[in-house]
Amino acid sequence: MTGIPTFAIPPGFLGRGRGERIGAISIAGIPLDLGTTHRAGARFGPGAIRRASGMLTDGAHPAAWVDPATLDLSDIGDFAIALGDIGASLRLIEAQATALPHLIALGGEHGITLPLLRALTKRTGPVGLIHFDAHVDTWPDNFGQRYGHGSVFFHAIEEGLVEPARMIQLGIRSPVQREVWDWTLDRGVTILPALDIHASTPDAVAARVRQVVGDGPVYLSFDIDALDPAFAPGTGTPEVGGLATWQAQAILRRLTGLAFVGMDLVEVAPAYDVSEITALAGATMVWEYLALLGAA
Amino acid sequence: MTGIPTFAIPPGFLGRGRGERIGAISIAGIPLDLGTTHRAGARFGPGAIRRASGMLTDGAHPAAWVDPATLDLSDIGDFAIALGDIGASLRLIEAQATALPHLIALGGEHGITLPLLRALTKRTGPVGLIHFDAHVDTWPDNFGQRYGHGSVFFHAIEEGLVEPARMIQLGIRSPVQREVWDWTLDRGVTILPALDIHASTPDAVAARVRQVVGDGPVYLSFDIDALDPAFAPGTGTPEVGGLATWQAQAILRRLTGLAFVGMDLVEVAPAYDVSEITALAGATMVWEYLALLGAA
Amino acid sequence: MTGIPTFAIPPGFLGRGRGERIGAISIAGIPLDLGTTHRAGARFGPGAIRRASGMLTDGAHPAAWVDPATLDLSDIGDFAIALGDIGASLRLIEAQATALPHLIALGGEHGITLPLLRALTKRTGPVGLIHFDAHVDTWPDNFGQRYGHGSVFFHAIEEGLVEPARMIQLGIRSPVQREVWDWTLDRGVTILPALDIHASTPDAVAARVRQVVGDGPVYLSFDIDALDPAFAPGTGTPEVGGLATWQAQAILRRLTGLAFVGMDLVEVAPAYDVSEITALAGATMVWEYLALLGAA
Amino acid sequence: MTGIPTFAIPPGFLGRGRGERIGAISIAGIPLDLGTTHRAGARFGPGAIRRASGMLTDGAHPAAWVDPATLDLSDIGDFAIALGDIGASLRLIEAQATALPHLIALGGEHGITLPLLRALTKRTGPVGLIHFDAHVDTWPDNFGQRYGHGSVFFHAIEEGLVEPARMIQLGIRSPVQREVWDWTLDRGVTILPALDIHASTPDAVAARVRQVVGDGPVYLSFDIDALDPAFAPGTGTPEVGGLATWQAQAILRRLTGLAFVGMDLVEVAPAYDVSEITALAGATMVWEYLALLGAA
Amino acid sequence: MTGIPTFAIPPGFLGRGRGERIGAISIAGIPLDLGTTHRAGARFGPGAIRRASGMLTDGAHPAAWVDPATLDLSDIGDFAIALGDIGASLRLIEAQATALPHLIALGGEHGITLPLLRALTKRTGPVGLIHFDAHVDTWPDNFGQRYGHGSVFFHAIEEGLVEPARMIQLGIRSPVQREVWDWTLDRGVTILPALDIHASTPDAVAARVRQVVGDGPVYLSFDIDALDPAFAPGTGTPEVGGLATWQAQAILRRLTGLAFVGMDLVEVAPAYDVSEITALAGATMVWEYLALLGAA
Amino acid sequence: MTGIPTFAIPPGFLGRGRGERIGAISIAGIPLDLGTTHRAGARFGPGAIRRASGMLTDGAHPAAWVDPATLDLSDIGDFAIALGDIGASLRLIEAQATALPHLIALGGEHGITLPLLRALTKRTGPVGLIHFDAHVDTWPDNFGQRYGHGSVFFHAIEEGLVEPARMIQLGIRSPVQREVWDWTLDRGVTILPALDIHASTPDAVAARVRQVVGDGPVYLSFDIDALDPAFAPGTGTPEVGGLATWQAQAILRRLTGLAFVGMDLVEVAPAYDVSEITALAGATMVWEYLALLGAA
Repeated sequence: MTGIPTFAIPPGFLGRGRGERIGAISIAGIPLDLGTTHRAGARFGPGAIRRASGMLTDGAHPAAWVDPATLDLSDIGDFAIALGDIGASLRLIEAQATALPHLIALGGEHGITLPLLRALTKRTGPVGLIHFDAHVDTWPDNFGQRYGHGSVFFHAIEEGLVEPARMIQLGIRSPVQREVWDWTLDRGVTILPALDIHASTPDAVAARVRQVVGDGPVYLSFDIDALDPAFAPGTGTPEVGGLATWQAQAILRRLTGLAFVGMDLVEVAPAYDVSEITALAGATMVWEYLALLGAA
Repeated sequence: MTGIPTFAIPPGFLGRGRGERIGAISIAGIPLDLGTTHRAGARFGPGAIRRASGMLTDGAHPAAWVDPATLDLSDIGDFAIALGDIGASLRLIEAQATALPHLIALGGEHGITLPLLRALTKRTGPVGLIHFDAHVDTWPDNFGQRYGHGSVFFHAIEEGLVEPARMIQLGIRSPVQREVWDWTLDRGVTILPALDIHASTPDAVAARVRQVVGDGPVYLSFDIDALDPAFAPGTGTPEVGGLATWQAQAILRRLTGLAFVGMDLVEVAPAYDVSEITALAGATMVWEYLALLGAA
Repeated sequence: MTGIPTFAIPPGFLGRGRGERIGAISIAGIPLDLGTTHRAGARFGPGAIRRASGMLTDGAHPAAWVDPATLDLSDIGDFAIALGDIGASLRLIEAQATALPHLIALGGEHGITLPLLRALTKRTGPVGLIHFDAHVDTWPDNFGQRYGHGSVFFHAIEEGLVEPARMIQLGIRSPVQREVWDWTLDRGVTILPALDIHASTPDAVAARVRQVVGDGPVYLSFDIDALDPAFAPGTGTPEVGGLATWQAQAILRRLTGLAFVGMDLVEVAPAYDVSEITALAGATMVWEYLALLGAA
Repeated sequence: MTGIPTFAIPPGFLGRGRGERIGAISIAGIPLDLGTTHRAGARFGPGAIRRASGMLTDGAHPAAWVDPATLDLSDIGDFAIALGDIGASLRLIEAQATALPHLIALGGEHGITLPLLRALTKRTGPVGLIHFDAHVDTWPDNFGQRYGHGSVFFHAIEEGLVEPARMIQLGIRSPVQREVWDWTLDRGVTILPALDIHASTPDAVAARVRQVVGDGPVYLSFDIDALDPAFAPGTGTPEVGGLATWQAQAILRRLTGLAFVGMDLVEVAPAYDVSEITALAGATMVWEYLALLGAA
Repeated sequence: MTGIPTFAIPPGFLGRGRGERIGAISIAGIPLDLGTTHRAGARFGPGAIRRASGMLTDGAHPAAWVDPATLDLSDIGDFAIALGDIGASLRLIEAQATALPHLIALGGEHGITLPLLRALTKRTGPVGLIHFDAHVDTWPDNFGQRYGHGSVFFHAIEEGLVEPARMIQLGIRSPVQREVWDWTLDRGVTILPALDIHASTPDAVAARVRQVVGDGPVYLSFDIDALDPAFAPGTGTPEVGGLATWQAQAILRRLTGLAFVGMDLVEVAPAYDVSEITALAGATMVWEYLALLGAA
Repeated sequence: MTGIPTFAIPPGFLGRGRGERIGAISIAGIPLDLGTTHRAGARFGPGAIRRASGMLTDGAHPAAWVDPATLDLSDIGDFAIALGDIGASLRLIEAQATALPHLIALGGEHGITLPLLRALTKRTGPVGLIHFDAHVDTWPDNFGQRYGHGSVFFHAIEEGLVEPARMIQLGIRSPVQREVWDWTLDRGVTILPALDIHASTPDAVAARVRQVVGDGPVYLSFDIDALDPAFAPGTGTPEVGGLATWQAQAILRRLTGLAFVGMDLVEVAPAYDVSEITALAGATMVWEYLALLGAA
């Protein structure tokens, strides 16, 4: 092993210094959790994911053989947010994301994806979306709150940031109103419930994803609650029956060659985590994404 | 989303007030854990399962499209038990269960199933049984205790409450004396060990269950330790190698149309739980059962 | 022991049914935690405090000999709040509190005290205040947020809800800007830092409290972080060097005969608690307050 | 340091082999927790206390300068109990204790003290009692159960096992019915509430203890919930406002020269413990008792 | 059920007394964790695995129908190690292992396997190896430390203790330098990454194992981190995407008839465990191995 | 409040960037824990203390009125250590410490103090020592290991790094061999056992400290286990009966004007911590020390 022991690794993602120069790919934390409908705590997600990433610093990805150390990657620290104010926070996030070429955001709750897409699509136009989640997140409101974490893709679709026909949701399983489900399908979104993924194979699932998102620019939004609570207990709105980490990894590894333009990893809530397994799962999904970028 | 946020939901199951009127289906907690052979603590199971059920209150089941809010369901609170006295507790439980039309009991330890079956079968006659568990629970005694949680189906069979030929056990994997195993098979019970379920499919398993229990009245007894400790750490006698929550869900969803007459969900011990994942697994299994009833 | 075992007690405070009639004294939960500056999670405080209160249901207070069962006390459930919106939540809280004769609020974060005082003082005029806390909570803002939990008494004083000369703060010890400290003293508030309480006695401290608050109407606002993190780990902004629970109890028991008009117990964040000790500390402080009311 | 590292110490108390020969002083575990009124789990107390005692194996007591290694002490393993049957368990415990010359029992719940005193007093006649506890434990019943852990000294007094005039209770603070309190005082028992101990000094408290118990044979019954939940979270019926470990140690160290005839340390419930601090507190109280014996 | 309750079982593996006579098969703990590269804590592994094994004492293996009680098995306690000194510890371990006929070692970190193989192969000559792990453990050094836990099989191969052509690694998935991977393959070792096992079946995997190891003497080295952190959070270098416990069991059960000459179960770090599930997984893997021996 | 929210503070101590320029006072982490005799894990102490220090970044010390933001303080990151090699690690630590003008070291275990004193005293000559600890740490060896954490002051005294007559130990209470105790006293060291501190006052204790250390250069070595496990559960060798955090703070605040030349805060082991209270206690003791420096 080279470098320094994982337990003494510097505190940025994969040991990159925090706040340093901006590389071709940048990592940023976005510690917003005001729009969570059940448990809060995702504000501590960025720090926990960074720490857990230390386990992934020594060596290359053992399938893609991409060594993250060879990527032009920087950890630019955390975005500023407005304490206790969702609207102002969304505006701040959008402003800070606008200038960044290829951003990987560490949430925070899922509500951050909306301003990230607003910023991104100014440059790319509407994007395709690969969305891992237990929830469709297309509710028009959240117990009265329009910009809670359950409405992010309602707005993204309504605002034309996402092409619904190029959007696929994987791992869905929460209770949901039939009209929300139907609205989502009617827009053209493809929903792959968790049980369908369990009954299928990573090969077939990945083929379906590729078919849906096609060759255009595509964004990956990974809500950690797509994973089963056994694999990711540290999250705000857990639902049993979810994916194993290996399933998510196996699907992601089959998505080489897509035109990825950004990613977020959201809803890691460390206060509910156990021995950092959720944070490590989150860090690993980002590492898989980096391997996809590196292999491109 | 409608209604009130999940974190402020009233404390009955699925937000139903506790202690209210008796509906067509009633939920009751039975906080007995005197007959546990390893860890105690299931006395706190009913409260934990109710709280976790808050996550399931907002929306319909995303496959059966049954909205629990439309069911005539009431949470009647907890049964009285006799502190430190198994025999008296079993008599109290039977007495309280007798008048209830369709009861879903939240344990408490598995020993509660015996008086529940005694009460139920006065009305229905002997029942078929779908039994999820890591243990056969047909020991004639428990380290000297006749009415511990490992003997519940020994007595149920001996007392003629269950038709052994219409009884199937799913998830079995604990150490067991050969004579206990053989006694169970000799009575006519079908045993599906956990590893056989892992090697099979939910379709095939569900078909086997339907074949065994047939068209007669059938009771569902779900010991949470049927699930692997990764999915359900909060229980009294964990055994590794168990089911994933998705497997249990996938099997249950294929049991539509059976003549269900009651259910219990037992052995959730919150002191050993992690971020409520066991309680949520328990609440979800009850929710799946309600979807079966609602779809009927 | 009479009644039912503590582990099966109904889920309202001291076993009172939730949502029932309004008594002379009412308990309500206020699950707001949007204005916390460090850890969120106090939205789950009301439920945790209620459950922990089960330990206090069987018997009388062993010094005041008040049996809470003899008080005209009701638990009216949780206040509605606006998800993700501090301003709207404060307005909702004020509206719901207005009609209640003697309210004991279970937080939620400390920000809830502002609308509670707004509602209360419509009836009583400005009140004296006994404020247990690690923080002065007289910051004019919270990292830019005007209505965060660190500003509650800045506003209460500015709005004339509290008589600063009749306000005393006990347990203060966090870092603080000198100008915030001086502003507080300049208004006439008495500050008793935690170390001064450790160096003194409950008798002397209580005498000082009585001297400050006098005979007029007085409100008790108890932030659980007044206690040391050893005694109350489950809170959002812990500071070491705080009070032991016995010290808080000993001080409170010496405050008989004051003209109490209301109380809140705030900042219990169960995700950070350990074996419910913080929730139990919170419930016990409310129980001590009830004993003061009962002894009056 | 001598001997072997604490983390590899054999699993008996202070590293003594379990089940070996019977010394002048013997340690035994009694894993009974059927009579607990709130949380169960003390059945795992003996193992946890033994493991924690490893920290106390290397060196002498730094005030009494007694080296436990020089005592004729053996760990004889655990007593048999009857699973799920309080009555039979009490009879078994009494039978096993009868032959042991000087027994230190590791509980298990407080109910075990009754059969231990029955066995002991056959040899010694009625004993004086030093009783550390948050609860008086003189309830005539426990929610209907006569032999629960809250009734142990009701029976001990009624059966004449204890001389009430030579019995003192330290740390009392739970809610209690006035008639139970008065019954206890009327028998002649001395009660030192926790707050009185906080307001006093170890010197004065120990003097009071010596005055009460005098020169006759005296038994020490230490319920770990005498300590505050901050110091002993791992217990079944915690009450805030309790003693610090140093207070209990300071009092015990001033009790040299008393005619001790036995001890129990009860109500350690490891499932609720934190980093073994409760188990270590329990082990340390036994170690303090051994120092008293060794110094005699 | 026979024997004594699991919660009172003596503290040796499967209830065997510790330190007793040496049977045909012996169990020993080796509490070394100095060579861990990330989290330490495996020194407490032996005790935790022994305690967890209590769950497996009552009854036979429900597939092999081997009752461990019928095996000539002894728990000889813990090996001495040299505190803070890897080199001296490895020498001590080798010396103690040399005389033992068939040893099952409970780690401790993976570094212990090297001296165990040195001792074993004096008698057997080079052995085949079935190696469950997330890591190849063939690094030539560990951040500068030659004998850390990541180098154990580099040395074992270099020293000729293992026949690389008869060595198979199952569950591999950590980041790794390409040259370490290639070195391993070039020696002739077979690597089965975790994702390949997920994509395959236990039948096929076991067939591959049998093909690789053949008929010669074979050693089983089971690093608990071969399992996914959901199933085994209590370990030092967790990697997501690992095996479920049922997969490991299913593979092991298909390995009957191999010429096993020893086993170790390493890297259980109880400080990171949750409700003992990792320790139970470890104990169960040893129990599966005993069933293989018993069925032979 | 000014600056950024505590939950988003940069990851250096008090938010200082890690690895930046060297100020007049520098903070460094030293992640060594190879010499611990019981629980390992202090290698994660530096990161945990830094994170917890975020709570202390917003405002001045509320008694000394020193604002740490005004100090010339830098966090220079972690020292390199030699994995698995105590001797090489001690040499590395000494080499890295030598050039630093005023170092505050975050451990790691107590063994790091030896090379720190070796480096420091090259510049200052022998120093006085204020040593908070549960253990005297003057054992000549540690179960055979000469440079374990229990021998640090044996060597420091033997090597003439410390003036024993100017050395005082506060909080001592572990078991200890009489000859180790006497050796320490015979060298001239002053020992203040924890119980003596409990029986005294911070004023008297601080006066004694000042009397012992006098006007010469003095070093503060704070082992977090000086605190009681209730206040600091996250440590390697806990002993009950220790100090409260307020006691340590009250003593430190009375030590203004001493000629401090360095400090270490050791033995925080986060795997055993609870809601970060131990890390926060550690960070706070450093903050108190900074206030002493700032007030000088």
